[in-house]
Amino acid sequence: MSLALTVDGDYANKDNFQIIILMPDFDFEIKQQDENCLARVGVIKTKHGKIQTPAFLPVATNASVKALTADDMVCLKAEVLMANTYHLFLRPGLDVIESQGGLHKFMNWDLPLMTDSGGFQAFSLGMGAKHGVGKIAGDTKQAFSLKHAKVNDDGVLFYSHYDGSKVFLTPELSIHIQQILGSDIMLSFDECTSPLSSYNYNKIAMMRTHKWAERCLDARKTDQALYGIIQGGIFKDLREQSAKFICSLGFDGIAIGGSFGKNEMYNVLDWLSKIIPKEKPVHLLGIGTVEDFFNSVEKGIDSFDCVTPTRLARVGFAFIRPEEGGNVKNKFRVDIGRNEYKKDERPISEKCKCYTCKNFSRAYLRHLYVVKELSFYRLMSIHNLNFFLELMKDIRNAIKKCEFLELKKYWLN
Amino acid sequence: MSLALTVDGDYANKDNFQIIILMPDFDFEIKQQDENCLARVGVIKTKHGKIQTPAFLPVATNASVKALTADDMVCLKAEVLMANTYHLFLRPGLDVIESQGGLHKFMNWDLPLMTDSGGFQAFSLGMGAKHGVGKIAGDTKQAFSLKHAKVNDDGVLFYSHYDGSKVFLTPELSIHIQQILGSDIMLSFDECTSPLSSYNYNKIAMMRTHKWAERCLDARKTDQALYGIIQGGIFKDLREQSAKFICSLGFDGIAIGGSFGKNEMYNVLDWLSKIIPKEKPVHLLGIGTVEDFFNSVEKGIDSFDCVTPTRLARVGFAFIRPEEGGNVKNKFRVDIGRNEYKKDERPISEKCKCYTCKNFSRAYLRHLYVVKELSFYRLMSIHNLNFFLELMKDIRNAIKKCEFLELKKYWLN
Repeated sequence: MSLALTVDGDYANKDNFQIIILMPDFDFEIKQQDENCLARVGVIKTKHGKIQTPAFLPVATNASVKALTADDMVCLKAEVLMANTYHLFLRPGLDVIESQGGLHKFMNWDLPLMTDSGGFQAFSLGMGAKHGVGKIAGDTKQAFSLKHAKVNDDGVLFYSHYDGSKVFLTPELSIHIQQILGSDIMLSFDECTSPLSSYNYNKIAMMRTHKWAERCLDARKTDQALYGIIQGGIFKDLREQSAKFICSLGFDGIAIGGSFGKNEMYNVLDWLSKIIPKEKPVHLLGIGTVEDFFNSVEKGIDSFDCVTPTRLARVGFAFIRPEEGGNVKNKFRVDIGRNEYKKDERPISEKCKCYTCKNFSRAYLRHLYVVKELSFYRLMSIHNLNFFLELMKDIRNAIKKCEFLELKKYWLN
Repeated sequence: MSLALTVDGDYANKDNFQIIILMPDFDFEIKQQDENCLARVGVIKTKHGKIQTPAFLPVATNASVKALTADDMVCLKAEVLMANTYHLFLRPGLDVIESQGGLHKFMNWDLPLMTDSGGFQAFSLGMGAKHGVGKIAGDTKQAFSLKHAKVNDDGVLFYSHYDGSKVFLTPELSIHIQQILGSDIMLSFDECTSPLSSYNYNKIAMMRTHKWAERCLDARKTDQALYGIIQGGIFKDLREQSAKFICSLGFDGIAIGGSFGKNEMYNVLDWLSKIIPKEKPVHLLGIGTVEDFFNSVEKGIDSFDCVTPTRLARVGFAFIRPEEGGNVKNKFRVDIGRNEYKKDERPISEKCKCYTCKNFSRAYLRHLYVVKELSFYRLMSIHNLNFFLELMKDIRNAIKKCEFLELKKYWLN
């Protein structure tokens, strides 16, 4: 519940000076700390419901998890989704979302929503595009051949990927948009650097991110929670400086941003785990591999968002557990389009309880893939999201018994 | 249940001559005849369940109704689907379908299935492509610039639209494929002519279709029902000749094929209604507009199949009833991509009980359309199929009260 306290207390006289203290409708409680590492189970409480952590947030970039609808997400027992400020600002635009009473109503999703700030797009459409790198360096070659974003101290100038029109996104505008969207958890506007950026550039971007963090806090006029974002690239002193500064500002939660090499990310998490106060929920932005989940939860991460399960679903990769042959080497996935599945009557996974596995064979899915049927995208996305969400549930259950490291070993060895 | 009666009766001696009489697992019962026209309500019974007629069959060309899965079709209360012999023969191929125990199991659909014979593709990939016409003359310009099929008396030579490989489809092969698919209702292999074909060509094609009809009946070795197809173009004497011949052969039901001008189709149905025995169920192939439904049911048609609801859904057309402004002029549909729906909080239809209308606004659907979200195709297809299936239900209810013509007037005036 939101509280707006007036110091003056005289509601009748509107001319009286009033100080409004906003109480975010947000709470984080640690339920269980694993004894053997930093992994913990918690509950985030929001106006739209609770989120059990560690949590995975399916991504609904354009107000829809790709190929799926709200009923699918309810069936999958997703407790929170991530939506994209930059994309929704361009299409359908704020006037539309506002006229529909906010994003929850617009997309018919009654449970919690987190929104990013648009900062990541400043990277992915800007320096990331220039350097040809995505979230994980070398993992994703961006589809953009031109630089679509330019950063200065005041904000980011975007050239819309729809029509090339200019959009100047500032911390204040980002928060304004997120307030209209009405997400339960907002993210502060940041500059995400490329893993190829220099120390000096990372320092400049970090300082900018810090100023923007303060501006975001100042701009917030609602009871929505706001997470601050730690940047600083792969440089220990910058990361530590950023963590100390961001954690000093009174954000409701902490997010870790950046575009990494894999090993560098684990280093960063080690450094940050020593600085971020234990009572704050910590979100690791845009991360979504089995290996990363285990290594990050171990270092105290409480939530993740990533397009991996749906994006890989659409190109034919289905996730499998260790019992079915999933391992680090095959990245816990099978390529359902392979000829060997042509007559395979088994589901993707014998043990999986998702709609897809309960009803359809690998042979059928392979056929849908080959003939490019639209139903393929939905069935595969359902399976992959279920895999991610169930993995998080297994991780929570292991932590409750202080057996997280055993589970990690079972999966990663 | 299927019966295989032996005249000899001596099962022990396998060398004895036996005549097997196949009893198709099929029954058609007329429940109510409208007093004022030929419209009737009936029930088709098959091994996989009953079909209330007049019925609309959603089309699952490649073993999936486009953008939807079996659960969606169950929610929509579809009682029967149409699948395509030609397409499924090419992909995934008979060996795959056979290995999976037939099409029902493959696509996880436990209710009745009808399969076409591949004859229509001889037209749409052959003469139809050459003449640039589709099912309704002038309505659909085929995407094929080359002729992909050649017909002779023995069958049709196809060049696969996947890889150009040659497939020679004969009546015997068509029935063989449909038997492996295991549909409840098969269609005989026919030659569909172009509306631009001459009288003489139509006569040649009709005679061919008649010979192929006999060969199909001879080829059937299972208890699946088999419908004969009447051809003869837009020529009264040919249509009458074809109807008399096809109806004399002992098919379980009758299908009406052809590519028409709209008014010519109604003439054809008038001529045929005087010849086809009343006790036979009659299927009108590939027809799917509101106007056609009413005009055809009035002339005794019991079932329809068409890709219209799903194909139009994918390009943004949503069907609406007269209460919501649907009429013959606007073809009972709205273009959901229009700017006027940008902030429209209403569902496509206030009275519609489909999942889409109960949960999403026109504004949301328009947004999904604009940003090309995959979920759009599913939500729109659900609505349009629900519209078609509910319309058939309304038609059945009107016939039961002998008020079909009143309902027709309400919709078409």
